[in-house]
Amino acid sequence: AYGELEDVDMIGVTTGLAWTEVGGVILQIEAITSPGKGKVTVTGKLGDVMQESIQAAMSYVRSRALDFGIQPSVFNKNDIHIHLPEGATPKDGPSAGVGMITSIVSVLTNNAVRRDVAMTGEISLRGRVLPIGGLKEKLLAALRSGIKTVLIPEENVKDLAEIPDNVIRGLDIKAVSRVDEVLEVALAESLTPLAPEDVEPPTPMAADRGDSDFEAPLRH
Amino acid sequence: AYGELEDVDMIGVTTGLAWTEVGGVILQIEAITSPGKGKVTVTGKLGDVMQESIQAAMSYVRSRALDFGIQPSVFNKNDIHIHLPEGATPKDGPSAGVGMITSIVSVLTNNAVRRDVAMTGEISLRGRVLPIGGLKEKLLAALRSGIKTVLIPEENVKDLAEIPDNVIRGLDIKAVSRVDEVLEVALAESLTPLAPEDVEPPTPMAADRGDSDFEAPLRH
Amino acid sequence: AYGELEDVDMIGVTTGLAWTEVGGVILQIEAITSPGKGKVTVTGKLGDVMQESIQAAMSYVRSRALDFGIQPSVFNKNDIHIHLPEGATPKDGPSAGVGMITSIVSVLTNNAVRRDVAMTGEISLRGRVLPIGGLKEKLLAALRSGIKTVLIPEENVKDLAEIPDNVIRGLDIKAVSRVDEVLEVALAESLTPLAPEDVEPPTPMAADRGDSDFEAPLRH
Amino acid sequence: AYGELEDVDMIGVTTGLAWTEVGGVILQIEAITSPGKGKVTVTGKLGDVMQESIQAAMSYVRSRALDFGIQPSVFNKNDIHIHLPEGATPKDGPSAGVGMITSIVSVLTNNAVRRDVAMTGEISLRGRVLPIGGLKEKLLAALRSGIKTVLIPEENVKDLAEIPDNVIRGLDIKAVSRVDEVLEVALAESLTPLAPEDVEPPTPMAADRGDSDFEAPLRH
Amino acid sequence: AYGELEDVDMIGVTTGLAWTEVGGVILQIEAITSPGKGKVTVTGKLGDVMQESIQAAMSYVRSRALDFGIQPSVFNKNDIHIHLPEGATPKDGPSAGVGMITSIVSVLTNNAVRRDVAMTGEISLRGRVLPIGGLKEKLLAALRSGIKTVLIPEENVKDLAEIPDNVIRGLDIKAVSRVDEVLEVALAESLTPLAPEDVEPPTPMAADRGDSDFEAPLRH
Amino acid sequence: AYGELEDVDMIGVTTGLAWTEVGGVILQIEAITSPGKGKVTVTGKLGDVMQESIQAAMSYVRSRALDFGIQPSVFNKNDIHIHLPEGATPKDGPSAGVGMITSIVSVLTNNAVRRDVAMTGEISLRGRVLPIGGLKEKLLAALRSGIKTVLIPEENVKDLAEIPDNVIRGLDIKAVSRVDEVLEVALAESLTPLAPEDVEPPTPMAADRGDSDFEAPLRH
Ligand SMILES: [Ca+2]
Ligand SMILES: [Ca+2]
Ligand SMILES: [Ca+2]
Ligand SMILES: [Ca+2]
Ligand SMILES: [Ca+2]
Ligand SMILES: [Ca+2]
Ligand SMILES: [Ca+2]
Ligand SMILES: [Ca+2]
Ligand SMILES: [Ca+2]
Ligand SMILES: [Ca+2]
Ligand SMILES: [Ca+2]
Ligand SMILES: [Ca+2]
Repeated sequence: AYGELEDVDMIGVTTGLAWTEVGGVILQIEAITSPGKGKVTVTGKLGDVMQESIQAAMSYVRSRALDFGIQPSVFNKNDIHIHLPEGATPKDGPSAGVGMITSIVSVLTNNAVRRDVAMTGEISLRGRVLPIGGLKEKLLAALRSGIKTVLIPEENVKDLAEIPDNVIRGLDIKAVSRVDEVLEVALAESLTPLAPEDVEPPTPMAADRGDSDFEAPLRH
Repeated sequence: AYGELEDVDMIGVTTGLAWTEVGGVILQIEAITSPGKGKVTVTGKLGDVMQESIQAAMSYVRSRALDFGIQPSVFNKNDIHIHLPEGATPKDGPSAGVGMITSIVSVLTNNAVRRDVAMTGEISLRGRVLPIGGLKEKLLAALRSGIKTVLIPEENVKDLAEIPDNVIRGLDIKAVSRVDEVLEVALAESLTPLAPEDVEPPTPMAADRGDSDFEAPLRH
Repeated sequence: AYGELEDVDMIGVTTGLAWTEVGGVILQIEAITSPGKGKVTVTGKLGDVMQESIQAAMSYVRSRALDFGIQPSVFNKNDIHIHLPEGATPKDGPSAGVGMITSIVSVLTNNAVRRDVAMTGEISLRGRVLPIGGLKEKLLAALRSGIKTVLIPEENVKDLAEIPDNVIRGLDIKAVSRVDEVLEVALAESLTPLAPEDVEPPTPMAADRGDSDFEAPLRH
Repeated sequence: AYGELEDVDMIGVTTGLAWTEVGGVILQIEAITSPGKGKVTVTGKLGDVMQESIQAAMSYVRSRALDFGIQPSVFNKNDIHIHLPEGATPKDGPSAGVGMITSIVSVLTNNAVRRDVAMTGEISLRGRVLPIGGLKEKLLAALRSGIKTVLIPEENVKDLAEIPDNVIRGLDIKAVSRVDEVLEVALAESLTPLAPEDVEPPTPMAADRGDSDFEAPLRH
Repeated sequence: AYGELEDVDMIGVTTGLAWTEVGGVILQIEAITSPGKGKVTVTGKLGDVMQESIQAAMSYVRSRALDFGIQPSVFNKNDIHIHLPEGATPKDGPSAGVGMITSIVSVLTNNAVRRDVAMTGEISLRGRVLPIGGLKEKLLAALRSGIKTVLIPEENVKDLAEIPDNVIRGLDIKAVSRVDEVLEVALAESLTPLAPEDVEPPTPMAADRGDSDFEAPLRH
Repeated sequence: AYGELEDVDMIGVTTGLAWTEVGGVILQIEAITSPGKGKVTVTGKLGDVMQESIQAAMSYVRSRALDFGIQPSVFNKNDIHIHLPEGATPKDGPSAGVGMITSIVSVLTNNAVRRDVAMTGEISLRGRVLPIGGLKEKLLAALRSGIKTVLIPEENVKDLAEIPDNVIRGLDIKAVSRVDEVLEVALAESLTPLAPEDVEPPTPMAADRGDSDFEAPLRH
């Protein structure tokens, strides 16, 4: 179910941590691609802030594609779908940002995510990992679910003082301040940057497809 | 009517199970295609969660097209319409996910769905079948409607303890945890994967049509 | 006016039957085409369910175009407008489905609809005619308006027991279970399927125009 | 101002009649074109029903373009803007339909509208003129504004019994049942149909621009 | 600030007059262009009526482009942005219409607007200047701001009787009934119509780009 | 965190100043680009006025691209994403305008923003810096955060009288009335205008891609 880990490392599936009124839960973040033209679909009854968080994650990965070993043309030749089961439960907030980036990079580099790693952290377009709320509940949920390693924002380290000792001992808690640190720990293989001479040139007609629409945040 | 089974196995028509305040009902999930350009239309007074469920089903089928024996170009050359009669009755929830996938694969592979099979289960982009609610009401509706085989999520097996004996005896209840098991039972013919050398190349101009719009979930 | 029949059989104009709080009324369903690119416009203050009904009718006709003798290219080279006067009166419900299909097939095959035929029935994508409500009021309206033949869903035959004798005697009531039966009665000329060798090939660039937007039902 | 007639016959400007809580008023319906690609813009704080009425008027004119002497390519090479001053006053209802058609045909045929003619009537896609409300108030407004000829729907003739004698005497009231009669009276010059050999062929790429979006009525 | 005039005549900046609950204010209407494809952006917390007023202004200028010395291709090769500071203050109403046209024509003809001229008046697509409200408050605001010349609608001349003498004496008030009179006074240089032989032919592919979407007024 | 300055000057990251009920805060404005087609995405739970402010900033930069040393083709070949962490906190108002322009110019010219500079000011399309509210709270926040230089609108200089002496002494407060002054101070390198002979010609097909949609402000 939603709260169960996979038996093997999977491509495009990251374990996030959410904080609800009745405690913490783990949250699977699924990303898949199919041949397409760059459409990004998001489902799972996600609120506005979480949708914006996915937009930020997509833009961040696109802007750093070469560093992550992703051909820029990949974004035009594939559609990406990001889904968070269970579909009937409303989800919101920015703290799944690091998980969104990890699932996207995983699926675009064909690089599995370690299934015993969970993570929480808001992201910025500069690649910083920003602090989140509900640390205690999230760590408890991770421990309960059999997670071994949890990535938390550097700025939440001060909150560890109020976490029970057995939780601290039962988990390998790593503080991160940059997205690169997250990817280094969570992905099974290290990322290899693309050398400039390996970048595929854009298709001849691609450059003049400018559509220039102003895209507002996804409010309804 | 909506609650009556067809006399022959049909292409693109799957029997789902829904759970309402006044009991369970069977739910026909219809999919048809016509020459087009990849538009997906959904009708039947469907709520947001059910619409997202169809989006997930479409993305899942597209991402696994080769495994199911579907040429990727099929998605660009056809429009797909998914409809759930009766059109004036509101419908929602994620549990028709397995039925959505089955109807889509059926219509795209020209492979009939067994008319004596009913199914219920949420889907994930990884192809997992996730647990649902209302199992008892759904099984009663299946029995009443002449269904022989019912596919239920593995994680709902524990709920069978509270189902009356005559229902258990009157139905062939199969627990499934993966979408592939659903398709194996429900489709009249086994699916034959496409060998790499049989995949049609994309049309010359298709690659550079990137439109890259961020598609939000279908909320209104 | 809205409640008056035409003096001659007309192309694209079908008589439906609606059921309101103050009794039944006949409902003219108008379809016209103009050179275009496949846009479908619907007007007449139509509710969500009726709009979805038109979407289903369009998809059904497109998926069976060859059977009805319609060149597939017709859908790309024409715009279709469906309007239900009077424009200030709200209209809703799925029971005009058979009338929608009839008007669309009529205008696309240049084949008049018999003006003395009225009809009511929800449609499914499989071409089934599903039961409707308000049969008594609708039959009374048909009789009052000078209609000779009324097509009703097979599953509503049981409701004829409560219809006054004079209404039964004054009308030729035909029960139908498939859309094909509706078209056989309502259209002035029988439809001639297109032989495969008569199907016009798509225009060279048509195949790669895939736009693949996910089209939600028309809720606002 | 809004309630004043022009001094000369003008192209694209028709006088409609509206019915408000404080009596009838005349309503200028303005249409202009500019080189473009077929966009139709409507302004003047128009309600849903009036917007649908303009959609119906546009579709009707397009479907009968050859009869009215309009090259079909005109609709692709021009944008049309329809505006009803005064911009801050809400306007709604279907009865300006005949005026909408008249302004559109006028501007597309470069054929002035007689400034001493006013009109009221809902339209259907078949070109019928359907009855309207508020006849008395509308005729009084026409008389007050210096209008000489008023076109009313045939089915409203029965309502003339309750119109004061001086109004009947002061106006030339013509009853019409078809849009063609409206255009014959209101336009300065008779329309000349296009002979088939005079129709311009579509531009080479026009045929394959199919976009096939389902356009719902303009509700918000 | 918003209420201060520029030191020199500027291109694309017109002084309008608004009427608020606490009195009149001057209103800067800014228009700029950049290389683009014809997009029109409007900002400044504008209400529906003011947005429609800008749509009407744009259509009017496009329909009379040759008279104003503007190449029709200008509208396809440039984006236009119209902004009314201050961005946090809601603004609405049709009376800025003449100012909208003036700013648009100014920026498209590279012709400065006289900074000591203010104006108020609704526009029609025929180029008429229609009456407005709040004349007294607007004239007081103009006087206070150092404006020398104010253009008002001809039909508001009757309202001058109730304006204090010192205001009348302190301003050069010009009554206008046509948009052309506004442009003649407000623009630094007279406009030179384009001779037919000076009109640039459209680019080869422009004619067949017809997109024909029906654009509703901008209501939400 | 959001309220902490970077350790080095960064490209595309500007420090704005916001004014909330509980005092002033610094606000990081992030802009990144990726290969694309001119799409502008904005996130960070921004209100309508702030979104319009970004639209104005984008149009201003595009209209003055040559002055800032930006090739016009840059806007068609890149997507731009502007984000304001923290993503769950609503933000609104026009006073981040100067910061928006600075981040956009920075990222498009590959020119870092001085990390010890903060700024506040509404912008106009003419490039004026307009006055803002909450000056005292904003200056206090700047001082608290280690900012050295604060740019404020010229028209707010009069408000400095009520600012505590230690704040005035602790900050280098510069009054600006034009956007150019902001860029001169905030960017690490001076901008070099593009000479006409260095402007890249548009791609062959770019000129005729006119889409001419009227873009309303982003209200929902
Ligand atoms: Ca969260
Ligand atoms: Ca590693
Ligand atoms: Ca369900
Ligand atoms: Ca099988
Ligand atoms: Ca109905
Ligand atoms: Ca027949
Ligand atoms: Ca009316
Ligand atoms: Ca005549
Ligand atoms: Ca106003
Ligand atoms: Ca002059
Ligand atoms: Ca602010
Ligand atoms: Ca500098």
